[in-house]
Amino acid sequence: MKFKKVVIVGPGLIGGSIGKALLSNKLAEKVVAVVRRESAVDEVTGAGAVTSATMDLDLAMPGAEAVVLCTPVSAIADKAESVAKLISKECLITDVGSTKRSIVKRLEKIFDNKALFIGSHPIAGTEKRGVSAANDRLFHNAVCVLTPTDKTPHAAVARAHSFWKMLGARCIEMSPEKHDKILARISHLPHLAAYALVRAITADADIDMNSNLVGGGFLDTTRIASSPANLWADIFLDNKKEVLSSAKEFVKEVNRVIDALEKDDKTLLQKLLEESKLKRDKIIEHLKK
Amino acid sequence: MKFKKVVIVGPGLIGGSIGKALLSNKLAEKVVAVVRRESAVDEVTGAGAVTSATMDLDLAMPGAEAVVLCTPVSAIADKAESVAKLISKECLITDVGSTKRSIVKRLEKIFDNKALFIGSHPIAGTEKRGVSAANDRLFHNAVCVLTPTDKTPHAAVARAHSFWKMLGARCIEMSPEKHDKILARISHLPHLAAYALVRAITADADIDMNSNLVGGGFLDTTRIASSPANLWADIFLDNKKEVLSSAKEFVKEVNRVIDALEKDDKTLLQKLLEESKLKRDKIIEHLKK
Repeated sequence: MKFKKVVIVGPGLIGGSIGKALLSNKLAEKVVAVVRRESAVDEVTGAGAVTSATMDLDLAMPGAEAVVLCTPVSAIADKAESVAKLISKECLITDVGSTKRSIVKRLEKIFDNKALFIGSHPIAGTEKRGVSAANDRLFHNAVCVLTPTDKTPHAAVARAHSFWKMLGARCIEMSPEKHDKILARISHLPHLAAYALVRAITADADIDMNSNLVGGGFLDTTRIASSPANLWADIFLDNKKEVLSSAKEFVKEVNRVIDALEKDDKTLLQKLLEESKLKRDKIIEHLKK
Repeated sequence: MKFKKVVIVGPGLIGGSIGKALLSNKLAEKVVAVVRRESAVDEVTGAGAVTSATMDLDLAMPGAEAVVLCTPVSAIADKAESVAKLISKECLITDVGSTKRSIVKRLEKIFDNKALFIGSHPIAGTEKRGVSAANDRLFHNAVCVLTPTDKTPHAAVARAHSFWKMLGARCIEMSPEKHDKILARISHLPHLAAYALVRAITADADIDMNSNLVGGGFLDTTRIASSPANLWADIFLDNKKEVLSSAKEFVKEVNRVIDALEKDDKTLLQKLLEESKLKRDKIIEHLKK
């Protein structure tokens, strides 16, 4: 066993999968979940994601060697305040928020000289939510971004690397700011686009009557519009500056296609689409390596 | 055998899959492909999609009981002109173009009193192209839209139903105009959005260096941006009015999210995303039935 006790605050898809991976690989003796609702206690233990669950942080924390904050982005800092009062200096603490700049800034203050904090973002997950969707292989071959700053204790970096590696992920490091800039484009914008796309497609009432016509194109482009709305509203707001900048770039690109089409400019239209195809194909090619 | 001879003009993913399905289910004795390039003769026959291939329509057509036009949208009408000179009155002729209004209008004139024409659009296919991606089960459980008008011969409707049913598809009928309106939203707009999304995401040079961060969200929302650019430029131009109208609706919806975000209006933002999620979930639920 690597750990006697790991605490997961807010076990949903990600936290539940961390618990499952720790237990099924015998990496932790105890995995304790801290939940918000009474009904979640049975749900989380029943799913086999943890050894026990409680609503009471005071009961959960004593003896914790690692704490993972897995609540929605907007709740992480508040939870961290409570955790900080109950933690030992050698405890590794990390969060799995999809945004990093504002969270890391606040949590660095909260845990300064109180614990070993570093921000994490495992690039895993689906449009599904909740511990019922958790699985112990979610992080296998996933990339996990660690966002150390000049305030991050060296021990936190080393232990976070080893923690995520145990779960099957490959860690890379970058600044919280760079993380948020890249993720705004690679993840947050596609979500924003998918949500808006469903609204535009269904603006015409006829579509409901003809949903048997949807093909793979609709299903794939809009899959992540089935993601939990509250989580993504949180993420967009927390990463507002970068999400806005990428969304405006996106509107510009849609308008370029619209303009080419309005002018019947086949050459330009084809060029815009072809460049896009080549760029995507290059990324896919790179991923295969 | 249902057919002695079927001719497929322009066998790529769709035409090749028709040929393979006809042959592997022993529905046609001969399937003859009409190709544009010398090199395609061996490619198409080598792929097992047809019994023979030729560049010469005059050689291909005699004795054809059914002809399927599978070229890109912009080439269908020109091919139809040549086919019309070589066809018998009892021959079933259909096309598989992703747009129907302009094609059906032109082909109805071309084949008037010359053959049994009806427009088809099998909702099948992927981002891949070419006969090498063809497979004999492509139409299994797919929906095929037939677009009869008041000019369509009754025999054409009946025979097209039976043709697509043999290949495993379920046919529904609607007017060419309604088809183009719905498909603009359910298929053409998602393609336009995916192409523009890749451009917006990759507008920042850093992304290339960090493509290892892409997750399922990026991959799925942009999958169809790897579709052939020339085919989709054709489709957008041919269905210009409806594609423009849906693309402008889409820009409006993206801007609604942008506005809510700029105003830090979490309630509105969450409402926009939640409505989108519910609409998509409803469509998915309906598809499962």
